[in-house]
Amino acid sequence: MKKFLNTPQSLLDESLNGFAAAHADILCLGEEHKFVRRRTLTPGKVALISGGGSGHEPLHAGFVGEGMLDAACPGQIFTSPTPDQMIAAAEAVHQGAGILFIVKNYEGDVMNFEMAAEMAEAKTASIITDDDVAVETSTYSTGRRGVAGTLIVEKVVGAAAERGIALGALQALGNAINRRTRSMGVALTSCTVPAAGKPNFALGEDEMEMGVGIHGEPGRRRVKLASAHAIAEEMTKAILADLGPARGSEAILLINGFGGTPALELYLLYHEARRIAEGGGVKPVRSLVGSYVTSLDMAGASITLSILDEDQLSYWDAPVHTAALRW
Amino acid sequence: MKKFLNTPQSLLDESLNGFAAAHADILCLGEEHKFVRRRTLTPGKVALISGGGSGHEPLHAGFVGEGMLDAACPGQIFTSPTPDQMIAAAEAVHQGAGILFIVKNYEGDVMNFEMAAEMAEAKTASIITDDDVAVETSTYSTGRRGVAGTLIVEKVVGAAAERGIALGALQALGNAINRRTRSMGVALTSCTVPAAGKPNFALGEDEMEMGVGIHGEPGRRRVKLASAHAIAEEMTKAILADLGPARGSEAILLINGFGGTPALELYLLYHEARRIAEGGGVKPVRSLVGSYVTSLDMAGASITLSILDEDQLSYWDAPVHTAALRW
Repeated sequence: MKKFLNTPQSLLDESLNGFAAAHADILCLGEEHKFVRRRTLTPGKVALISGGGSGHEPLHAGFVGEGMLDAACPGQIFTSPTPDQMIAAAEAVHQGAGILFIVKNYEGDVMNFEMAAEMAEAKTASIITDDDVAVETSTYSTGRRGVAGTLIVEKVVGAAAERGIALGALQALGNAINRRTRSMGVALTSCTVPAAGKPNFALGEDEMEMGVGIHGEPGRRRVKLASAHAIAEEMTKAILADLGPARGSEAILLINGFGGTPALELYLLYHEARRIAEGGGVKPVRSLVGSYVTSLDMAGASITLSILDEDQLSYWDAPVHTAALRW
Repeated sequence: MKKFLNTPQSLLDESLNGFAAAHADILCLGEEHKFVRRRTLTPGKVALISGGGSGHEPLHAGFVGEGMLDAACPGQIFTSPTPDQMIAAAEAVHQGAGILFIVKNYEGDVMNFEMAAEMAEAKTASIITDDDVAVETSTYSTGRRGVAGTLIVEKVVGAAAERGIALGALQALGNAINRRTRSMGVALTSCTVPAAGKPNFALGEDEMEMGVGIHGEPGRRRVKLASAHAIAEEMTKAILADLGPARGSEAILLINGFGGTPALELYLLYHEARRIAEGGGVKPVRSLVGSYVTSLDMAGASITLSILDEDQLSYWDAPVHTAALRW
């Protein structure tokens, strides 16, 4: 295992300390590192809280800040955060207008956020994201997995919350975005969980996992490494088949690296995915290319298309000031 | 070799097409992909042009835009761009106030930018960056290598150019920033140049290359993998020894990933480097953590400290709107 590391046990805390120090103008850490929260809260605004296992950075802590999340709860690596983390975050950021939990569809996350919602004193609502079209159920999920599309839900709902939209309407908006947002991923290599010290799964030198999950969960099939064009075509067409877009639909196209894939390759995938989307009648009018929802050091990437209307796109365009997204 | 790729020969052009399409609001491609330039130029401003071999993305094309570069010339992977690329870029972006070339200290780059300067019709000046403290000469450089600190020079000089500073003063400012900016890197794995199809150099399973260059050039020594703390300590202390900072100096601390290292590990390095810098009497008052000056898919990172005065920090803080840096 070749990583920058002191001990696997201390990695997360040390990394969070570095993250909070590097972005002290935007955010701060909660007690015992239970959560990351905005430094400055907006009175009367619905508070948005997300969270999940670590190892997917910058998701979710990198999306805490003006225009996006109010707090994020980092679990141990690939492990759900606990309800007491969510409760502590809710108490720290609640501003009287309720709490909206944004939860990726994994059993542990869903269960723990449900427990937190029951225990919370504030009024809460939840959005469960499940944008991954690769498989219908998976190792850690009943139903589809929530993957990179989650960042689009968090951005759009975050902007709407900033404009003073109420809890119920925000939940409806988030669910609508989730339904119009679809993703699929591919792994060229495994990732290595530090505490395990060896690759999470085995992939041959000429193999890839098509439809992989963000913890290395099996996808649709393990096949021979193909050209970037063929990979982008299979993933983009699977997404288009699922979305069934009207011709001329406008979309956000997100090419998301899994942590070990450089920008040069991600932009090549963007080039391919864009042409295939356009061939399928979808026009990418907004673009995001980078490593945003990762799987530790995995080489691989996912493609996300999110078909939004004009109002929804204006939320995407609204100012955001977080560690990982800023405009 | 596991990469998103159609053919090694087409990778750069396809990736640049994707890059230009994804960031069409900011930039466009020159004829035959000779350069990337800002979509909108500022009349009367000194034009800033950089460039170098590809494989270091987002450097330099990712820094083209308001507040930073006017154009960047991408060479083939790890290969200097040619003088005709630089001449074409200069003709496209010159606005009557002269051209400033920002060049990393590699023999091919320096020679070709010199030829371009001689052939250019506009008045030109050059800044050669050589921030790498690891070795005094290297495979492709006489004198120190120019590495991640180059982005700090490009940002500061870019902001100054935007404020209307003239060519000679910009060159002096860039040289001053370069002298106060020092870096050192470490590789945990090699990178693989697509056309070669195999790792650039061999590193044992328990080895790292301390002081590596951004093309995988040898560093100071090849040693056993050490803790993140020990790695950060060796690199940060080497930088501090070279800078000889006055106690209480204020600095930018940049932790730069080489392409295959995820954010979780980079923030851990930040945590370590920050404490060591503070112990050495330097206060990191600005921070940047991410993969900005990469070596294809290499796992590894560099640390940069840049000791700036108040005016220089205000240039760092000034607005920037590029593909890779935006605030």
